Amino acid sequence: MAKGLKPAGGMPADPPRHVLCVGAAVLDTLFRVHEMPRGEGKVLPYAMEQIAEGMAASAAYAVVRMGGRASLWGAVGDDEAGHRIVRELGQSGIETDGMVIVPGARSALSTILIDPAGERLIVPFYDHKLHETKRSCTPDDLAAFDAVLVDVRWPDMALDVLTMARQMGKPAILDGDVAPVETLERLAPAASHIIFSEPAARSLTGAGEVAAMVPLLQARYPDIFIAVTAGPAGCYWSEPGKDTLFFEPAFGVTAVDTLAAGDIFHGTFALAIAEGMPARQAIRLSSAAAALKCTVFGGRLGAPTRLEAETLLQRR
Amino acid sequence: MAKGLKPAGGMPADPPRHVLCVGAAVLDTLFRVHEMPRGEGKVLPYAMEQIAEGMAASAAYAVVRMGGRASLWGAVGDDEAGHRIVRELGQSGIETDGMVIVPGARSALSTILIDPAGERLIVPFYDHKLHETKRSCTPDDLAAFDAVLVDVRWPDMALDVLTMARQMGKPAILDGDVAPVETLERLAPAASHIIFSEPAARSLTGAGEVAAMVPLLQARYPDIFIAVTAGPAGCYWSEPGKDTLFFEPAFGVTAVDTLAAGDIFHGTFALAIAEGMPARQAIRLSSAAAALKCTVFGGRLGAPTRLEAETLLQRR
Repeated sequence: MAKGLKPAGGMPADPPRHVLCVGAAVLDTLFRVHEMPRGEGKVLPYAMEQIAEGMAASAAYAVVRMGGRASLWGAVGDDEAGHRIVRELGQSGIETDGMVIVPGARSALSTILIDPAGERLIVPFYDHKLHETKRSCTPDDLAAFDAVLVDVRWPDMALDVLTMARQMGKPAILDGDVAPVETLERLAPAASHIIFSEPAARSLTGAGEVAAMVPLLQARYPDIFIAVTAGPAGCYWSEPGKDTLFFEPAFGVTAVDTLAAGDIFHGTFALAIAEGMPARQAIRLSSAAAALKCTVFGGRLGAPTRLEAETLLQRR
Repeated sequence: MAKGLKPAGGMPADPPRHVLCVGAAVLDTLFRVHEMPRGEGKVLPYAMEQIAEGMAASAAYAVVRMGGRASLWGAVGDDEAGHRIVRELGQSGIETDGMVIVPGARSALSTILIDPAGERLIVPFYDHKLHETKRSCTPDDLAAFDAVLVDVRWPDMALDVLTMARQMGKPAILDGDVAPVETLERLAPAASHIIFSEPAARSLTGAGEVAAMVPLLQARYPDIFIAVTAGPAGCYWSEPGKDTLFFEPAFGVTAVDTLAAGDIFHGTFALAIAEGMPARQAIRLSSAAAALKCTVFGGRLGAPTRLEAETLLQRR
């Protein structure tokens, strides 16, 4: 099949579309606990996993699992965790030759406690030195990619990538998660598509209801595809030039671990857009992928394959 | 100075005495937080350190800092954390050639949150496979050591080491920290000296006051030196054949991190006994070392030098 054509049915494009993900790359330590801690003392975990992930990194993994190609531009320290992050992401099929190793900075580390209801306590450590510099972002650097997806972790780099991608006519997708409002307001106008999380959309609009946030954001960014994900409540969106609020309910699942579910949504969406999929179909596929992820313990490692996500879609 | 003579003044023996420490070797991730978490959500740490430590490992480091030689027998998995634990402990001056790498087991990892008052929330992960086997413990294996110190983490190995050390007439010291009562009751009779933590002594005796615990434990183990440490409240002890309850107050300090303070006490005590120091002098030196440790953030890395501890002693 020639590049540029839409894939037949629900299967990935052939050759696979290539998504550049830009942002967080973290070594997470996940502890499963029977109860969340309340103050000092000791909590004995009954299981432990260490996973190289982070918003952009987990999204990149979703792209790979969904049958696409993913490259990650992220920054790690020149330390044991950093080399491990790059190696393990590479072993997961993510192309890591664009990763930056920052001398004198320490890699991002998080500890995450997850209780039997899938609720999370997150203790994330970031060294501000990690994202003080940028890597190059020329038309040559972006030529290979069919879409870009950036998170809010490396704002200067994200802005370069969004701006250059739009200049080149490529989908430029922003994972609009919680960040300082000035960061969101700086990145948003550079994107072609923004998927906000509910708390981030609330911080930008002050609205209480998700259905009210989307029109406010659409009015502010009229040329941009705007979506707001609301977890188990589903996803609302609007499209430039259409005066409509769209909605797609989430798939009902029993969640055991919601960690990285949003990232799996974003990665799947980016690949779907890179494949030229219509918006509703892309949102539905992303919702299915995120829902399936929630049923599996282990952060991004629970990302489903394309076939698993399509099977859930066909069962609805 | 010939081996076996007591050191002059407060300085370490020359040649240095050699203590074998047996038990925990863990990769700790320390996060400094402004407030302890109470349930799910996110806690942003303002500082982070990763330190290879654990009870026996931290005690071994205290031995080194106090001018002695320390070997560590502990078990780690054949994984990244395990190799890092062995390497970093070696870089700290601990002799690690007796460490065991267990194929198929995962290394012990802990996350520890420390608040501004030095209070701790500990999330320790142990793989039970780590301590299912033992290493050899012949008279040849122990010939080089002047004393042994074991914790409760590797009970089968600890029992072998205590038993062989006593047969060879060497001080055989048990760090009697919280553990299943049957573990403590199995190890205690094999020791020549036991330093109980207050909660462990309470679990064995049911007594409410530390001063009441020591005589009960002494009656149960009449041939063994028995001490119970009570943190800032000081240390109580009794000696075989003496019908006296001894007490030494703790040094008053402003604690910023009590992590590993008990281990620093135990390591210092083991070296002092290996040097032939009288009991009260050994307890005083150990109290000074533990107090100084509490004034420095960073777990075992806050262990003072011999000179620093002696200086505090002379100021009292």
